[in-house]
Amino acid sequence: MQAAQRPHLIIIGGGFGGLTVARGLKRAAIDITLIDKANHHVFQPLLYQVATAALSPGNIALPLRAIFRNQKNVRVLMNRVDSVMTAEKKIRLVSGDEFSYDRLVIATGARHSYFGHNEWEKNAPGLKTLADALKIRQKILVAFERAEALLSVGKADANELRRLLTFVIVGAGPTGVELAGSIAEIAHYTLRKEFRGINPDTARIVIVDAASHVLTAFPSVLGDSAARALQKLKVEVHTQTAVTNITPAGVQIGEEFVPTANIFWAAGNTASSMLKSLGSELDRAGRAMVGDDLAIANFPEVSVIGDAAHAIDSATGNPLPGVAPVAIQQGLYLARKIKQELRGKIAPKFRYWDKGSMATIGRGRAVAKLGKLHFSGFIAWLMWSFIHILYLIGFRNRFAVMSLWIYSYLTNSRTVRLITADDL
Amino acid sequence: MQAAQRPHLIIIGGGFGGLTVARGLKRAAIDITLIDKANHHVFQPLLYQVATAALSPGNIALPLRAIFRNQKNVRVLMNRVDSVMTAEKKIRLVSGDEFSYDRLVIATGARHSYFGHNEWEKNAPGLKTLADALKIRQKILVAFERAEALLSVGKADANELRRLLTFVIVGAGPTGVELAGSIAEIAHYTLRKEFRGINPDTARIVIVDAASHVLTAFPSVLGDSAARALQKLKVEVHTQTAVTNITPAGVQIGEEFVPTANIFWAAGNTASSMLKSLGSELDRAGRAMVGDDLAIANFPEVSVIGDAAHAIDSATGNPLPGVAPVAIQQGLYLARKIKQELRGKIAPKFRYWDKGSMATIGRGRAVAKLGKLHFSGFIAWLMWSFIHILYLIGFRNRFAVMSLWIYSYLTNSRTVRLITADDL
Repeated sequence: MQAAQRPHLIIIGGGFGGLTVARGLKRAAIDITLIDKANHHVFQPLLYQVATAALSPGNIALPLRAIFRNQKNVRVLMNRVDSVMTAEKKIRLVSGDEFSYDRLVIATGARHSYFGHNEWEKNAPGLKTLADALKIRQKILVAFERAEALLSVGKADANELRRLLTFVIVGAGPTGVELAGSIAEIAHYTLRKEFRGINPDTARIVIVDAASHVLTAFPSVLGDSAARALQKLKVEVHTQTAVTNITPAGVQIGEEFVPTANIFWAAGNTASSMLKSLGSELDRAGRAMVGDDLAIANFPEVSVIGDAAHAIDSATGNPLPGVAPVAIQQGLYLARKIKQELRGKIAPKFRYWDKGSMATIGRGRAVAKLGKLHFSGFIAWLMWSFIHILYLIGFRNRFAVMSLWIYSYLTNSRTVRLITADDL
Repeated sequence: MQAAQRPHLIIIGGGFGGLTVARGLKRAAIDITLIDKANHHVFQPLLYQVATAALSPGNIALPLRAIFRNQKNVRVLMNRVDSVMTAEKKIRLVSGDEFSYDRLVIATGARHSYFGHNEWEKNAPGLKTLADALKIRQKILVAFERAEALLSVGKADANELRRLLTFVIVGAGPTGVELAGSIAEIAHYTLRKEFRGINPDTARIVIVDAASHVLTAFPSVLGDSAARALQKLKVEVHTQTAVTNITPAGVQIGEEFVPTANIFWAAGNTASSMLKSLGSELDRAGRAMVGDDLAIANFPEVSVIGDAAHAIDSATGNPLPGVAPVAIQQGLYLARKIKQELRGKIAPKFRYWDKGSMATIGRGRAVAKLGKLHFSGFIAWLMWSFIHILYLIGFRNRFAVMSLWIYSYLTNSRTVRLITADDL
C-alpha cells in the first residue's frame, strides 16, 4: 500500500481527534489511511441543531474526501473496522480484509450506553451521528403532525394527544440540556400559529437526570442557572430521579410513569467494542486506558484519543472529559509527536489545557466556565455563538448557501454529499 | 369544521398548483383545507440538484405550515387521501375518515410510470420527492465508495469496478438530461483528486431514450445542442433505443446489456390512482380529463390541475405539458375563478400563456425556447439560473444559511424542518 521507505499510519475515526491528527501531518513523510464508517466529518457540538431542525446536515458536515483532497499523503476509506491485532500490527475490517500499520491511532468516539438496557434504544434514540439527528428530527415533527391529524378527524382522545405532545429527555448534560431547550422553543415559539387544531404551546417537555444538578460537569451555580433557564422555557427539570423503564408507551421516571411517544437519550457513553480486541485495560465505559503519551500499555505505536480513551489530566489527576477540545488537543499532540519520532526525537508528555466549557439552553441563553470565571445568560450565549461560528468556519464550512451554490458551479465542489444511511 | 356561512374548499396536494390556489385565496371568504402526504412544498425544478448533492433538501423546500402560518383561512393536514366521493361531495382519507367539501381542487401531481414493469422501480428509482432525491444521492456516492473499498483491499475485479462506476439514466427529458449532466460533472470534476485508488473520471454515464432526440418537447435544434453538450461531458447518448429489461445486474438497452449498479428512471409519468375514484374520464397516463374551466365533466365544483390533469391548450389544441408553469397558471386561474364565483360572477375560460421552457446540461450549459427564439450554451444557462433563483426567492427560500441561522434565533423560525420519511 505504501512505499517501503515511508511508515504507514492508520487512523480509525474521522471525528475531531482523527481529523486533527491527519491534518497535523500534512507535510510529514508518512502514508496515512483514514478509515471511517461514514463518508463525512460532523461538527458534533451543533448536531442537536440538526436534530431540532435549525440546521441542515450539510451545514455542519463535510465529506472527508473533500477535506483531504489536496493532502496527498492521506487516503480515505469508508469502511468498518472489526478488530486490531496489536501483536501483528494489523487491523481487520468487518469484511475480513486486513491492513498492516507501523503506527495506529484509534479515535472511534463513543456511542450511547443504556446501562445494560439496550432494548431501550429503539424507543429512546440517542444523538451521535447525522442519521441519529435526522431520526430525532422526524420524531419531533411527526408527533405534532399526528396530534393535529387526530384532532382534525375528531379522534382527539385527550390521553393520546397528551402522549404525542410529551417529550422526555433522559440525561441533563450539555446535549440533553440543549435538546430540551430547543424542543421547548419549537413547541412554544416556532410552531405557534402554525396549527389550527392543537396548541403546540401545551406540549410537556421533561428533562430527567439521576444527578443532583443539571450540567454536573459545570460548577453548581451554573447548573442552577441552566435549570432556571430551562424552567423559564417551561421545561420540567427532574434531578436526582432515576429512569427505571422505557417502553413504547412511555417512561418510568422515579415514581411517575410518563406516557410519551417521544423519548430521547442523552445519558451515558460507551466506547466502541472494537477496543476489546486491543487486549489492554479498559475502564468501565469501555474506554482504553492510555498513558501520558496517549499510548496503550506495551504498544507505544498504538495511541487512543478522544472519547475512546481514558486519559488522566496531569493537572488534576482526574480522567479527561469526553469533549471536543480534549480530542482536538490530543490530536494536535499526536501529530507533533509522530513528526518528532520521524526525526528520531522523543516527544514530551501530553498536557491538557482547559480553555473552559459552555452549553446553551435555547436562544440567547447559555452558561460558560472559563478558568475561574463563570458566565450565564446572554453574554455566555454570545460567547458560545462566537466560538462555534469561528470553529465551523475553521472547518471550512460554507455558511452562505447562495455562495455555496455559485461556488459549486464555478469550482465543481459539492460540499453536501453526505451519506447518512447505515447500510453500506 | 368551518363556520356554516363560509364555503369549504379542500385542496389535495401542496405542489406548485395546490399552493398557488391556496395563496391566491388569501383574502377570500372561504375556509381552505390543504392536504398533502408530505409536510413541505418542494421546488421540484431543482430536485435533481439535491439528488446530485449540490443543494440540501432545506434549500429547495419549505414546510407548508410555515408558508400558511399567517394565512388564517388555511388549515394544513399531513395526510393521505384515499378517494373522492363526488356525488356526496366528500373525500376519504386512507385512515377511513371523511371530510365534506363545497369546492375541491385536486393537484396531486404524478409519479413515475414504468410502463407496466413496476418491478423495475426498486432497481431504477425515479425523482419526484425529497426522499427520492436523497435515495439517488446515496446510490451515486456509495457507488464510488464501494469501488474504492474493493480496490483498496485488492478485490478489484475489473468487471465489478466497471459495474459500480456505470450510471444509466432512462429517459432524456429535462430531468434525465439534468441528472446525466450532473452525474458526469461529479465523476469528471467534483471527485477528481479525491480518490487514491479508483479514477472517477473513468465512470461511464449513459442516457437512453426511445425517442429520436433528447428533449423531445424542445425544437430538434435545441435537442441536438443538448446532446452535443452531454457528449462533451463524456455522456453516451442513446436515442431511438428502448429499455427492455432492468435487473439488479444491469439494464438491457436495445441490443446491449449494460451491467450497472446505478439505474435512474426519468421516463414516463402516471397520475395518482386516487383519480379513478372520480368516476370521470382519464387519459392513458391516468390523468383526469378537464374542460376549459379545469373542472371534470358533470361536477363543476371539482377541479383538477397540474400533472394530474389532462387539459387542452386552447391555442394549439394539444394537451398541456406537465411542467411547473402550467400548474402555477392553472392555480392562479382557479383562485381567481373561485373568488369570482364567491361574488356570484362567472369566470372566463382558462388560457395558458407559454412563456417558454428551458433545461440545463451541467454548469454553464442550457437550452431555452422563448416563443420563436432559441438559445443554447452559456446565455441560456444564465437565463436559467436567473429565473430559477428568482422563483426560489419568490418562494421565500432563504439563501444564506448564515442569515438563516441568525434569523432562526431572532424570530424562532426554523425553515428546514422537513419530513422526508414515507412511514407516517
